Amino acid sequence: MKAAILGFGTVGVGVYEMLQKCEGLEPGPVLVRAGKVNADYKTDDLDQILSDPSVHIVAEVMGGTEPAFTYVSAALRAGKHVVTSNKALVAAHGLELNALAREHGVAFLFSAACGGAIPFLHNLALAAQTDKILSVGGILNGTTNFMLDAMQTDGCDYGEILAEAQRLGYAEADPSADVSGLDALRKIMLACAVAWGVLPSEGLNHEGIDSLTAADVAHFKEKGLVCRLLAHASLDECGRLSAFVQPVLLPQTAQEAAVKKNFNLAKYHGENAGDILLSGQGAGRYPTASAVLRDMSAISLGHRNMFPAGLKADAVHNELAKCRYYIRLPREAAGAFTFESQEEDGGLVRGVTAPMPVSRMHALASELRASECKLFFAAMEESK
Amino acid sequence: MKAAILGFGTVGVGVYEMLQKCEGLEPGPVLVRAGKVNADYKTDDLDQILSDPSVHIVAEVMGGTEPAFTYVSAALRAGKHVVTSNKALVAAHGLELNALAREHGVAFLFSAACGGAIPFLHNLALAAQTDKILSVGGILNGTTNFMLDAMQTDGCDYGEILAEAQRLGYAEADPSADVSGLDALRKIMLACAVAWGVLPSEGLNHEGIDSLTAADVAHFKEKGLVCRLLAHASLDECGRLSAFVQPVLLPQTAQEAAVKKNFNLAKYHGENAGDILLSGQGAGRYPTASAVLRDMSAISLGHRNMFPAGLKADAVHNELAKCRYYIRLPREAAGAFTFESQEEDGGLVRGVTAPMPVSRMHALASELRASECKLFFAAMEESK
Repeated sequence: MKAAILGFGTVGVGVYEMLQKCEGLEPGPVLVRAGKVNADYKTDDLDQILSDPSVHIVAEVMGGTEPAFTYVSAALRAGKHVVTSNKALVAAHGLELNALAREHGVAFLFSAACGGAIPFLHNLALAAQTDKILSVGGILNGTTNFMLDAMQTDGCDYGEILAEAQRLGYAEADPSADVSGLDALRKIMLACAVAWGVLPSEGLNHEGIDSLTAADVAHFKEKGLVCRLLAHASLDECGRLSAFVQPVLLPQTAQEAAVKKNFNLAKYHGENAGDILLSGQGAGRYPTASAVLRDMSAISLGHRNMFPAGLKADAVHNELAKCRYYIRLPREAAGAFTFESQEEDGGLVRGVTAPMPVSRMHALASELRASECKLFFAAMEESK
Repeated sequence: MKAAILGFGTVGVGVYEMLQKCEGLEPGPVLVRAGKVNADYKTDDLDQILSDPSVHIVAEVMGGTEPAFTYVSAALRAGKHVVTSNKALVAAHGLELNALAREHGVAFLFSAACGGAIPFLHNLALAAQTDKILSVGGILNGTTNFMLDAMQTDGCDYGEILAEAQRLGYAEADPSADVSGLDALRKIMLACAVAWGVLPSEGLNHEGIDSLTAADVAHFKEKGLVCRLLAHASLDECGRLSAFVQPVLLPQTAQEAAVKKNFNLAKYHGENAGDILLSGQGAGRYPTASAVLRDMSAISLGHRNMFPAGLKADAVHNELAKCRYYIRLPREAAGAFTFESQEEDGGLVRGVTAPMPVSRMHALASELRASECKLFFAAMEESK
């Protein structure tokens, strides 16, 4: 099968190179921007790609919602199978694209958009057909895991390690989607849609690591705790979903604590299968390209859909999920919380709350920050 | 699709129950031994199952090579898709069964035979189509991991924890396949066949944990090391395979060290994907049944083969793989090895060798044991 590629950045080049070496697949034309057509296999004309009957699959690896949405919609309408690594696109337009693909009887797969090289969504989709998925989550952002691991291991400062991540190409020039937790949130939205047929549309919460300091990390270490940025979504007994991203403090023996550098760890809990964990490179040229090619291979085996047929958008209910929270904030703001235990450290209070609704914690943090209060918070995971 | 079940033990009952609740699949007749037919859905007549045109899939969950091999062969010849959880069967007769399934155009899938609930072989098969797999391995036996974890955490004695594992149903009355490493070896043989199209036929080595003492574990702990029973197979630059099972000493921060109780951790390294790790329950009624049903679901999506078309049997070359070994043995036998460092402890020597061929270490251990020498050995994995 011949696969055209939309976009020739980090991932696009990897996909092109892998297609050249892969039995049963071959590279088709590559769409680049006008003025960038400097080789025979490149074109700036999408219609030429879509009208070529020898192109069976279109791999969209441009990123961003536009023009990706317009191009992918056109490819599906033209009867091409689509594979994409673009989480922003699928989180924003998953419903329309799923419907379009089903209407035109073509595949719409996006393994690479959540977990990079890890075959997470593929397995989740397969598991959801025969098992009841009760929760999904994990470390879904490699940039922040790289930073957290370095802060924990080497005691680096936040600004210092962010600059290092940018130098190594792990973080973008504008790192806000990564460090704010938004990137991980988009990924857990996709996992919700695959596991439960619900693409969360409101009520979501995300907190990143941009308030974390070296002093915070030193304090966790003293207590034998490790900080990781975790995405989490679960289904309660009444079928209501919660979905959020936040820092979590874990014992050093936790599986998540053993995830080093820019690796990801995705997991789900099936009623019958129990806990299933998958770990690997969440980003990078060849890891991400390997997921794009794995989806192409799945298409050749007959796979068509990662989302279930009746996919719908719905609100999540983060007021139903409860966590104990570790909070660091100035003494004068500490009255906003009731702590079960607390310590003072200069003008700062470090306290741990009783279990409280996730949505409430995120809302209180927003309110306090609106009045210039600097705070960090993380959920406490009990040692099992 | 209707699925018949051969065998109604721990896994068979789980498969039957899950099929009753699963959309798109339904339970067919269950084959039990003569004299055990005590319900309408049970039969002791295989021919009745195989001649029933409404049965599309046969799930073999009896275990052992006979009569499983005769029954599975008959099912494939009768044009039924086959799913099995039986590693002994597939390790012993994979070639014939793969050929039979392809000849009759039906599926032969066996996810549950390696890693239990973990979707390992399924992913490995998919990854091998588009990436070059360089190594496979991990913790593939839950019984011994349960024992090693308890010995490490609670300081239990080997005999004591084996009895506990038997009481909990994790170990069989005859635990020799688990504790000798043979069970894990069969599983890594299947992974080799899936990844490289070679079912190893000779030159394999396996060492279990049956020589391990509480004093050994206390000694590892002092040095910050954790013992795990690891299967490993890899491909060298010339395309030669090595495959073996042996205890390995790891730093406490290793991913394998975080695998607790009876969990498994399967992994592969793809040239492009990098390291991919998968963890979950390696055994038990519902985890194993969930893997059997996942294979059935894969059949409904069009999957037919887990083994590649040209599957062949071949010898492995464990003389090419080298490890540094930690060895505990009586002082009078220590001359069999050259140690880079060693300690004496009563009449025992605990030494660490320079890197030496895996096959040589296993052969030396056999020779020494043939003359009644009691020794324990484990490979040393360097901290990364």
